[in-house]
Amino acid sequence: MSTGQTWTVGVTGATGYAGGEVCRLLAGHPNLRLGGVHANASAGRRLGELQPHLLPFADLEVAPSGAADLAGYDVVVLALPHGESAAIAAQLPADTLVIDCGADHRLNDPEAWARWYGGVHAGSWPYGLPELPGQREQLAGARRIAVPGCYPTSVTLAMAPALAAGLVESEVVVVAASGTSGAGKSAKPHLLGSEVMGNVSVYGVGGVHRHTPEMIQNLSQAAGAPVGVSFTPTLVPMSRGILATCSARLLPGVDADAARAAYAKAYADEPFVHLLPEGQWPTTAQVLGANTVALQVAVDPDAGRLVVVAAVDNLTKGTGERRCSAPTSPWACPRPPVFPS
Amino acid sequence: MSTGQTWTVGVTGATGYAGGEVCRLLAGHPNLRLGGVHANASAGRRLGELQPHLLPFADLEVAPSGAADLAGYDVVVLALPHGESAAIAAQLPADTLVIDCGADHRLNDPEAWARWYGGVHAGSWPYGLPELPGQREQLAGARRIAVPGCYPTSVTLAMAPALAAGLVESEVVVVAASGTSGAGKSAKPHLLGSEVMGNVSVYGVGGVHRHTPEMIQNLSQAAGAPVGVSFTPTLVPMSRGILATCSARLLPGVDADAARAAYAKAYADEPFVHLLPEGQWPTTAQVLGANTVALQVAVDPDAGRLVVVAAVDNLTKGTGERRCSAPTSPWACPRPPVFPS
Amino acid sequence: MSTGQTWTVGVTGATGYAGGEVCRLLAGHPNLRLGGVHANASAGRRLGELQPHLLPFADLEVAPSGAADLAGYDVVVLALPHGESAAIAAQLPADTLVIDCGADHRLNDPEAWARWYGGVHAGSWPYGLPELPGQREQLAGARRIAVPGCYPTSVTLAMAPALAAGLVESEVVVVAASGTSGAGKSAKPHLLGSEVMGNVSVYGVGGVHRHTPEMIQNLSQAAGAPVGVSFTPTLVPMSRGILATCSARLLPGVDADAARAAYAKAYADEPFVHLLPEGQWPTTAQVLGANTVALQVAVDPDAGRLVVVAAVDNLTKGTGERRCSAPTSPWACPRPPVFPS
Amino acid sequence: MSTGQTWTVGVTGATGYAGGEVCRLLAGHPNLRLGGVHANASAGRRLGELQPHLLPFADLEVAPSGAADLAGYDVVVLALPHGESAAIAAQLPADTLVIDCGADHRLNDPEAWARWYGGVHAGSWPYGLPELPGQREQLAGARRIAVPGCYPTSVTLAMAPALAAGLVESEVVVVAASGTSGAGKSAKPHLLGSEVMGNVSVYGVGGVHRHTPEMIQNLSQAAGAPVGVSFTPTLVPMSRGILATCSARLLPGVDADAARAAYAKAYADEPFVHLLPEGQWPTTAQVLGANTVALQVAVDPDAGRLVVVAAVDNLTKGTGERRCSAPTSPWACPRPPVFPS
Repeated sequence: MSTGQTWTVGVTGATGYAGGEVCRLLAGHPNLRLGGVHANASAGRRLGELQPHLLPFADLEVAPSGAADLAGYDVVVLALPHGESAAIAAQLPADTLVIDCGADHRLNDPEAWARWYGGVHAGSWPYGLPELPGQREQLAGARRIAVPGCYPTSVTLAMAPALAAGLVESEVVVVAASGTSGAGKSAKPHLLGSEVMGNVSVYGVGGVHRHTPEMIQNLSQAAGAPVGVSFTPTLVPMSRGILATCSARLLPGVDADAARAAYAKAYADEPFVHLLPEGQWPTTAQVLGANTVALQVAVDPDAGRLVVVAAVDNLTKGTGERRCSAPTSPWACPRPPVFPS
Repeated sequence: MSTGQTWTVGVTGATGYAGGEVCRLLAGHPNLRLGGVHANASAGRRLGELQPHLLPFADLEVAPSGAADLAGYDVVVLALPHGESAAIAAQLPADTLVIDCGADHRLNDPEAWARWYGGVHAGSWPYGLPELPGQREQLAGARRIAVPGCYPTSVTLAMAPALAAGLVESEVVVVAASGTSGAGKSAKPHLLGSEVMGNVSVYGVGGVHRHTPEMIQNLSQAAGAPVGVSFTPTLVPMSRGILATCSARLLPGVDADAARAAYAKAYADEPFVHLLPEGQWPTTAQVLGANTVALQVAVDPDAGRLVVVAAVDNLTKGTGERRCSAPTSPWACPRPPVFPS
Repeated sequence: MSTGQTWTVGVTGATGYAGGEVCRLLAGHPNLRLGGVHANASAGRRLGELQPHLLPFADLEVAPSGAADLAGYDVVVLALPHGESAAIAAQLPADTLVIDCGADHRLNDPEAWARWYGGVHAGSWPYGLPELPGQREQLAGARRIAVPGCYPTSVTLAMAPALAAGLVESEVVVVAASGTSGAGKSAKPHLLGSEVMGNVSVYGVGGVHRHTPEMIQNLSQAAGAPVGVSFTPTLVPMSRGILATCSARLLPGVDADAARAAYAKAYADEPFVHLLPEGQWPTTAQVLGANTVALQVAVDPDAGRLVVVAAVDNLTKGTGERRCSAPTSPWACPRPPVFPS
Repeated sequence: MSTGQTWTVGVTGATGYAGGEVCRLLAGHPNLRLGGVHANASAGRRLGELQPHLLPFADLEVAPSGAADLAGYDVVVLALPHGESAAIAAQLPADTLVIDCGADHRLNDPEAWARWYGGVHAGSWPYGLPELPGQREQLAGARRIAVPGCYPTSVTLAMAPALAAGLVESEVVVVAASGTSGAGKSAKPHLLGSEVMGNVSVYGVGGVHRHTPEMIQNLSQAAGAPVGVSFTPTLVPMSRGILATCSARLLPGVDADAARAAYAKAYADEPFVHLLPEGQWPTTAQVLGANTVALQVAVDPDAGRLVVVAAVDNLTKGTGERRCSAPTSPWACPRPPVFPS
């Protein structure tokens, strides 16, 4: 794409938060063009009614979301509920780049899929987290890409370097705060503004959140051994953003300098991972709308734990869009990491 | 600039909200390059400490803000407290494009300046609201531009067409809701999060807000006769955005169709003013981070008034940045309206 | 009730915001006891699931909401959707004090009812705004009371004194900001936290909000002549509270002293209306959870208008509960204004 | 106090958040009367200017805060910055009930005080957390009471039963979300509404928060052995409330039933600790303004950890006011736990 070639992208689930965010990012992309928006429930309506902030696309009519409707694009982005992507993807041409924002193709283990999502596993695709060792190479040229979940993106990038470098034991404790857009756009009483403003709540306690196996898969790969994850998600009064606080017991002899050095080395060449200067801590506001992770590490000698905090925008980095979203984080990227050259 | 020529921009007051927003927008601009950041109080510090979200500029050192420090840029943006711009601007080369985000050069009437701001009037500059009739021509080629205030931007674009078209009487009532960034970044107790969250308050009641004379100036020009403005600003629990609700008594015989037609005509060729489809009303969220105004008009036959609602981002359109901020509102702009060709 | 007699209260619609607020206030009331909670859709469920903050009542089972289910209480509070109260009330004993938080019995004019709500008018009841001249006497001993709407409560108390005292012309312009609980608890996409946080929107523009005729009725009674009202409601990112900014053209010779004197006199003996000291302006936070109105007045000599701002909690004063809610505003009330002696 | 005797209370630091909350609660208390408000910086001002929501006390003049100014009250509440209480308390009569909302007398270990707060330890007082085993007896009749910190209140009540019952290992990991009022009322840039709204941040990472030793002290007492605590506080966009997510490694053989039984037993007779029904999780909104802790426990068999979540209002239960604040949580309390009979 360095040649300036333009790819035409079709987005289905464009009326939801994840799909709408993909459209927003496409609007600013020099090499990608939004070719059409699709959704089932809202087919036939004007996009402007459903996504008022997508003013440049306001007059687009939402088309249906069948595989036939999605034919002919260079790239198809599937932003659909879990379980709906696989059937559509199977009918799309092999040379179409299909990017699945859902969970259908993230897990490698069919038993894990069956336990956490139910039904038959559709098989795994290359996992769209290019910052993992060796992963960018697997993504280059791929025509099927599974976009990581929002929580796993933040937690994996926060803890993988420590586990890979042997800084910590293999039990990770994560408590993450998420904005409400992570729960999607379907109207449920507990997600009403009147309920969430001025309120922090917790859900999926006790390891029952579906993102847990995805974290375990990623972190175990980084560690080269099974890793346990205790994950507790909380809902906080903001629309977007995730702040993940992760910790693990330090192995003997690991100090703050060693920890910092491991992270500096792991992300030295990663344009979208910002290891903040010492003394500065991540905030979700600093990555709002950006394909950026803000990271900081600390060693707690009294408790004997490494604490790593990561901030992402659950709809941007969290949905796996890989192009920098210039206005918020216009880091110069020589090449969009996900889209193949 | 269609030739792709790049202009180097220096921003002073870059550590505040308005100056920081200019930097954010520059980051995404194809023809503009941030050449340096300046501020007095924070000179010598790392920009990343003060503007954590400006990650691509995090390592810039804040330089002092004297006229000598600002020499050598193609464009200088002054985002300083009211009264501080004039002295600096007077020392900058005549061929440097100086854009003043402050109030110093907005008002034409020295007596109005003396009454509302005090001291000696520094003279008026071309007013950076290209959507006003004939204004874009005055801005093309100008080397001194006064950026409109946030409230006046929304109110002027909301009511000027009705006054120019003779739809309403010359008394306008405005109640506007603003996010807290409009009050700036200096720490005051009533602006603490603990005070503003879950709270709506009112200030500057009774026509004492300094933006009132700027609204009167703009609307009187549009009407071709003196216009009275009753303006009440309110502070609402969000960081950014202004929603201005404006109304005036209808003149005899004016109906909804005539009102709508006048607005459709006034903004037919304006890429950054969106007269929404009938039945859709503006929200501040839909223009967040964008150089866009969302407008809607209604006629109230019982009360005999025209009601016009405008939404802007007080830091983007409100601070007069004239380039579309792609990710939020990537309207294709054939030419950046403010910067000369 | 000065004798300490206890009244047993049944609340239907107790699972909604208004009904839940009545339960909250009853919990702190020395002379009132919550006898039972009722609702149709949720009958049989535990109140604690539906109103988690009503911890003392968490184990109450929600009973059905038929007239027979509501028999036997000293007081029945109807917090039901508009149009559902009248049929139930008609079947309740004449000596039961029935307090209708809905609109069914607010309007005196059957034609106004038909135009704004549709269907047959159920007749009007004594209007539960004791601060209106002569109104407290009508409420004492009444066994049917219509609770004012949230917006009309704030607007009526803001403008009635000016109209009664002949300070202003008979055309009132109102722009009011409301928290989201005013829209109720039924899940609608535009009320999701993700939509309302960081966002201000407008609705019911052009005089189409159903509270308009109620304001006109109240203000016309105060003025002794027909009053026009231009009303625009806005939705702001908070759960509770209304800030109403009201203005009208000053009549000749009226100055700030005269305006202030009229309000001081009108509310001299009203424990729940706080005319703030000069220079202090109302905030919704200062009346949160309280049966209190905070008021301030200003004269704008340039615009020739009187501006009055009122803050109420839409669920407390706004729902017409008349007992002071101690913790937020524990004004000593010699007698609960609504409940008869 | 069951006799109806009234105690007169003086509050110093009444212009801050903690002191203001004490005043709010006094307003609703049947046996306590606010005798006077004190503060140093604001002495001579009207309380209404500084605490607009305390309408019943609006006309009180703030008095100075010296020991002499505080003489003559039955009860003195000290809501002062850490380190300022001890000197004042030392000069108050021995039979005056002095309640210190600050940290000066919480820690038993002089070395811990010196490390975390600096300077000379003023000695410890009876610790105002009556829900701890045996603690209520120590408080009855006491004339000096140290109010627990906001985070330690939630974390201690969350984890003490598990440690006392031998359910878990002695290493506790805590991540807590706090509203901004916990940071106090002094104006700092990072606490501005513009900074905190739509943003989650983290601070005091790596075990450096001053509440850590207080948690260790409480939990070690409960366990009867040294307990390690990894504590990470986060700042979330709301004014009030703390949600603490706590976990520890399960000891062999402990299952969900055993865990739940231990908590049910520990708090069976505690009116202000609500162990929620299975399946319901705490929210900060449900305890807003109340002297209530909402708790829930879960066992994560995969991760092998017990997870306990506690919600408190950092200004109410968190500041140690011990009387139920009726309107939000009007639990019938046979006796105010802190105030002696």
